[in-house]
Amino acid sequence: MKSHTKYLTFTVPERMGFENITETVSREVRSSGVREGLCLVNAMHITASVFINDDERGLHADFERWLEELAPHAPTTQWRHNDTGEDNADGHLKRQIMGREVVVAITKGELDLGPWEQVFYGEFDGRRRKRVLVKILGE
Amino acid sequence: MKSHTKYLTFTVPERMGFENITETVSREVRSSGVREGLCLVNAMHITASVFINDDERGLHADFERWLEELAPHAPTTQWRHNDTGEDNADGHLKRQIMGREVVVAITKGELDLGPWEQVFYGEFDGRRRKRVLVKILGE
Amino acid sequence: MKSHTKYLTFTVPERMGFENITETVSREVRSSGVREGLCLVNAMHITASVFINDDERGLHADFERWLEELAPHAPTTQWRHNDTGEDNADGHLKRQIMGREVVVAITKGELDLGPWEQVFYGEFDGRRRKRVLVKILGE
Repeated sequence: MKSHTKYLTFTVPERMGFENITETVSREVRSSGVREGLCLVNAMHITASVFINDDERGLHADFERWLEELAPHAPTTQWRHNDTGEDNADGHLKRQIMGREVVVAITKGELDLGPWEQVFYGEFDGRRRKRVLVKILGE
Repeated sequence: MKSHTKYLTFTVPERMGFENITETVSREVRSSGVREGLCLVNAMHITASVFINDDERGLHADFERWLEELAPHAPTTQWRHNDTGEDNADGHLKRQIMGREVVVAITKGELDLGPWEQVFYGEFDGRRRKRVLVKILGE
Repeated sequence: MKSHTKYLTFTVPERMGFENITETVSREVRSSGVREGLCLVNAMHITASVFINDDERGLHADFERWLEELAPHAPTTQWRHNDTGEDNADGHLKRQIMGREVVVAITKGELDLGPWEQVFYGEFDGRRRKRVLVKILGE
């Protein structure tokens, strides 16, 4: 059995944003030497997500507007979490909808993704450095 | 370590629908020969889900109505993704709520599910052929 | 390859509630002897969740209010699932937003969590005994 661990870092310049990390994760799969296995990719912060969807600008605009409607940032006083001095309660909620992690199969040494599947880092409280964990298990 | 890979295909006749795939996934676990391990089941398309919940007709009707309220299909012009000529932006959003994948433990050669847990394929832009990946790892 | 299986049980005294299970899961990782691997933690019931977020009382109050707005318990007659005699349709919906499971990397014999990541059992139809599965795979 082989395992491989990599920590990626991201600083998204806005409060909310999505970054395509498919190529970065693919590179880790190749350098792991794993031919058949599983690849876990997860946000290590609780106002961020890793998810799989389409790399299409209009859809990302839809995600932003939709998440803002389901879990609005303002007024920040509507959320009890913000009584602690934070203003990011909405980010904790948005991340539950988008998810913390994805697990992707590795087949014949590559991420086994469908034709339109792209892996994204999703940020809901940006403008600071955050980490994503890539863990690969297999042989 | 053993691994096993299977691609399932589904064509749901409506735009939205849920299909119980528990028995199909169980068969793959048995044919893998894995006694202790993990079984990943994921949609390979980005307007579809694999999720675990109850096999009860009323609940599935509730899912359909609830998802339609949270991420309405019409009017299709409300979503920027549909400016590309698509009409399935809502399917991309609905799938984020229902999730892309499940990971199920394999114990003593069987899916280790709770008494009411059933695995479903969830379709949000149907009427065409789509794939689900089953990846089994263990020994 | 090593594997380790543990069933945890919880009885949450209210309909909805969140319980921090990070230490309990960490203990299982240590007793598994796995140094590098994956740890699956999932609810075995379909009106419950396992999720990772912040251990902050205000945030948990926000989760409760927010989930109640997105998928209200009352009036129970609004959901077709409740026509079966149940009153927990909302719990099945809330659990889809919060998720069934988490997969956490194990690195150097410990759960590889970010600084604020805490693992929670989330209950949406409590006042009875329920189970969570911890499955560890690695070596």
